[in-house]
Amino acid sequence: MTATLHRLDTRRPPSLEPMMQLVAADMNMVNAVILERMQSEIPLIPELAGHLIAGGGKRMRPMLTLASAKLIGYSGARHHRLAAAVEFIHTATLLHDDVVDGSDLRRGKRTANIIWGNPASVLVGDFLFSRSFELMVDDGSLRVLKILSNASAVIAEGEVNQLTAIRRIDLAEDRYLAIIGAKTAALFAAACRVAAVVAERSDDEEAALDAYGRNLGIAFQLVDDAIDYVSDAGTMGKDAGDDFREGKVTLPVILAHARGSAEDRKFWKDAVEGRRAGEADFAHAIDLVRNTRSVDDTLARARHYGQRAIDALGPFASGKAKDAMVEAVEFAVARAY
Amino acid sequence: MTATLHRLDTRRPPSLEPMMQLVAADMNMVNAVILERMQSEIPLIPELAGHLIAGGGKRMRPMLTLASAKLIGYSGARHHRLAAAVEFIHTATLLHDDVVDGSDLRRGKRTANIIWGNPASVLVGDFLFSRSFELMVDDGSLRVLKILSNASAVIAEGEVNQLTAIRRIDLAEDRYLAIIGAKTAALFAAACRVAAVVAERSDDEEAALDAYGRNLGIAFQLVDDAIDYVSDAGTMGKDAGDDFREGKVTLPVILAHARGSAEDRKFWKDAVEGRRAGEADFAHAIDLVRNTRSVDDTLARARHYGQRAIDALGPFASGKAKDAMVEAVEFAVARAY
Repeated sequence: MTATLHRLDTRRPPSLEPMMQLVAADMNMVNAVILERMQSEIPLIPELAGHLIAGGGKRMRPMLTLASAKLIGYSGARHHRLAAAVEFIHTATLLHDDVVDGSDLRRGKRTANIIWGNPASVLVGDFLFSRSFELMVDDGSLRVLKILSNASAVIAEGEVNQLTAIRRIDLAEDRYLAIIGAKTAALFAAACRVAAVVAERSDDEEAALDAYGRNLGIAFQLVDDAIDYVSDAGTMGKDAGDDFREGKVTLPVILAHARGSAEDRKFWKDAVEGRRAGEADFAHAIDLVRNTRSVDDTLARARHYGQRAIDALGPFASGKAKDAMVEAVEFAVARAY
Repeated sequence: MTATLHRLDTRRPPSLEPMMQLVAADMNMVNAVILERMQSEIPLIPELAGHLIAGGGKRMRPMLTLASAKLIGYSGARHHRLAAAVEFIHTATLLHDDVVDGSDLRRGKRTANIIWGNPASVLVGDFLFSRSFELMVDDGSLRVLKILSNASAVIAEGEVNQLTAIRRIDLAEDRYLAIIGAKTAALFAAACRVAAVVAERSDDEEAALDAYGRNLGIAFQLVDDAIDYVSDAGTMGKDAGDDFREGKVTLPVILAHARGSAEDRKFWKDAVEGRRAGEADFAHAIDLVRNTRSVDDTLARARHYGQRAIDALGPFASGKAKDAMVEAVEFAVARAY
C-alpha cells in the first residue's frame, strides 16, 4: 500500500458535498434541535451562542454522527439530539478556546469574546456544555453519556496539555500527536461512535466508527496545521501565517526545527517565543519548511491517518454513505493542494 | 409562626459541627473519590484543582448530600461518588467565577487565575466539569444525571443573568433572588435531592430535600451579602466591603437604594458604577444600610428562607441527622451576628 489515497472519482476534486447531501434532511432536524435548545430566558445566551452556532461552521461533527448513522442503516431519530449535543460540546470548546488564545477572529468573523467579553464567553460555554448533557440525558443512553463525558474530559485534558506546551519549541512529535488526538480527534471519534450505539450495533462496529472519526480528526488537524505554511491557501477561510504569528508549535514547525541547522533552530525558537512575528519572518519560515519538506511530510502524515480512516470503514457495506465518508477523508487531506 | 428560629440548644451558638461529625466517616470516602478523580497525566490539572479543592473549603454541598442520605437512612455507598461530583461542579464554577470576576483572593488564598492564569483556570474548570459527569455516569442513574445536568445549566444561566445585571443599580429584588436561586441555591437543592434518588425514596421526599437545600442556599447567600456590610465581621474569612468595592448589587444595596433619598440613590448609583470605592465611601455605605435597616432586613429575609428550609424537613423522622440539618440552617442565618 502506498500513501496515495484511492480516489473514487477522478473526474472532480474530492468534496464534502456528497456527505452534506447525504445528511441534508437529518441536518435540518439537528438544526431545529440546536435552535430550540440554545434558547434561554437570559437573552445574552441565545444571542452569543447563535453568533457562533449560526456563524458558518461546517457542522463537521454532527455531520459525522448523521453520516455514520446512514452508513449502518439506522432509521430512528435519536441521533438528531445526539448530533446537537456533539455540536454544543464543540461550540462550548470553541468559546473557551478563543478566550484561552485571546483570539479575535474565527471563520472570518469577530469572536464572541471580542464582542461580548471573556466572562460572557466562558459562561455561555458552560451553559452549552450543560445543555449538551441535558440533551444526552433526554436521550437516555448511559453508554452515550459515558462516551461523550469521557470525550469532554479528554478534550479538556488535551487543552491543558497544549497550554503547558505553549511556546515550547522542544515539543516532541509524540506529545503533539497526543494533544491533537485529545483536542480534535476525540470528539470526531465520539461523534461517529454514538451512531453505532443508538443503532445498537456490535462493539466491533462501534470501534470501527471510532477509528474512522479519530483518524479523520487527526488528518484534519494536521492539514490545518500545514495550510498555515502554504502561502496561497485559498482554503476554508484560514489565513496563512496565523499559527506562526501566534508562536504555535505545530507539526510543520516541529519537523522544520528537528531537521534544521543550528541557525534555523535558533530562528524557530525565537519565532515560537514571540520574537519573530513579522512578514519577513513568516516568509523565511515558509522557506525553511519548504527546504526541509516539513509541510510535505506533515501532509504525508495526514494522508497516513486519512488512509487509516478509510480502511476503518472496511467492514461496512458499500454504498452512497460509505462513498461520501471516504470522499470526506479525501477532501480533508486534499485541502492544502 | 414568627421569624424567630426554634433553637434546639440554647446553651451554645449554632454550629456546623454536628453536621460535620455526622458525616465525617462518609466525607473521608468522598475525599478519597475527589483525590482519585482529579488526577490526570497532565500535572497542571491536579496541581491547580488541588489548590482549590484542598484549599480549606467547607465542602458544604457534598456535606449536604451526605447529611441528607443520613436523614433518610440510606446505607449504601453510591452517594460518595455523587457528593464528589457535586463538589467538582462547584469547584469548576468557582474557577470560572474567579476568571469572570477577575478575583485575586478566595478563602484568604490567591486565586488559581492569579497563580496559573485565566486560561488554565478555564480549562481545568472544564475538566472538572467533565469529570463530574463521568462520576455520575459511573453511578449510572439517569435521574441523578438529569438533576445535576439541569442544575449545571441553571447555574450557568444564573451566572449570565448576573453578568448582564452587573453594576446596574436598578436591579429589582425579584431578579436578584432569581440570580442567587440559580447561582447558589440550585446546586444546594440538587446536592440534597440526589440523596433521595439513590435511596429510592418517594417524589415527595425528593421534593422536600430539594426545598431544604434550595431555601438553605438562598439564606446562605443572603447572609453572605449582609456580612459584607457588617464592619466587624469575624465570619468565615470574608472581608467586609469586598462586594461594595467591586460594585456588586446585592440585597442590602437594593434595599438601601430603594429606601434612600435622592442623594442616597445618587451615591449608590455612583458606587455600583465604580466611582465610590474608597474607605470613606464604604463607611458612608455602612451608615446608609444601617439607617435604612437594610442589613437587618436582608437578614430577616434570610431567616424567612432558613425557616422554610427547616420546615421542609417536617416529614422526616427526628434524630441526630435532622437536628444537625436544622442547626446548619441556624448556623447559616446566625453567621452575621
